[in-house]
Amino acid sequence: MPAIVQETKTGRVLMLAYVNKAAVKKMFHSGLTCFYSRSRKKMWIKGETSGHVQKVKSVTTDCDRDTILIQVEQIGDACHLGYHSCFVHLLDKKGKIVRITEKRKFDPKKVYSSK
Amino acid sequence: MPAIVQETKTGRVLMLAYVNKAAVKKMFHSGLTCFYSRSRKKMWIKGETSGHVQKVKSVTTDCDRDTILIQVEQIGDACHLGYHSCFVHLLDKKGKIVRITEKRKFDPKKVYSSK
Repeated sequence: MPAIVQETKTGRVLMLAYVNKAAVKKMFHSGLTCFYSRSRKKMWIKGETSGHVQKVKSVTTDCDRDTILIQVEQIGDACHLGYHSCFVHLLDKKGKIVRITEKRKFDPKKVYSSK
Repeated sequence: MPAIVQETKTGRVLMLAYVNKAAVKKMFHSGLTCFYSRSRKKMWIKGETSGHVQKVKSVTTDCDRDTILIQVEQIGDACHLGYHSCFVHLLDKKGKIVRITEKRKFDPKKVYSSK
């Protein structure tokens, strides 16, 4: 099911990823966000490569119990493209991306290249 | 694809629902959030029954372009169970709901009963 990640300090929504039972269990055990990649069919810990981990503060579920909202302390930045949040691509009324709402915080090539 | 709804004024994540192209088009046209129900296989305008509509302020998409984040002004409350946000069911480390984090804002029977 989908998991929304929100930064407690700023209130920013950082990303959406998917979890299964094993990922949720590992998240609660490790204190770090952990997701299930539907394309790669495997679990991954956010920040395992980059060091940009997310420390879990609290987890709530919604009325239908089919989505979770994870409050985190984000170390570094969430987006693998180098932005603090993944949600930086502003849409116009035609649904086209018109601009990026913030500057890159890091160069993804440097953070991810060697691994 | 999933659409996260966040209240601009408070930063609260209110709900997650799904959109298709037609729902996104209708949302931009009407200025109100509009979703696609996968179970009922039809489009719905949030607040159509209750009057608790969401006025769209901005829409961003993420790096994978497979999720949208909708910033809204929430009229009334988002959750059909009577809470301001759907995400009020706090989980413990075993993934069980331990408590509800806020009081009901309205009685859902009164708001939804006649329709």
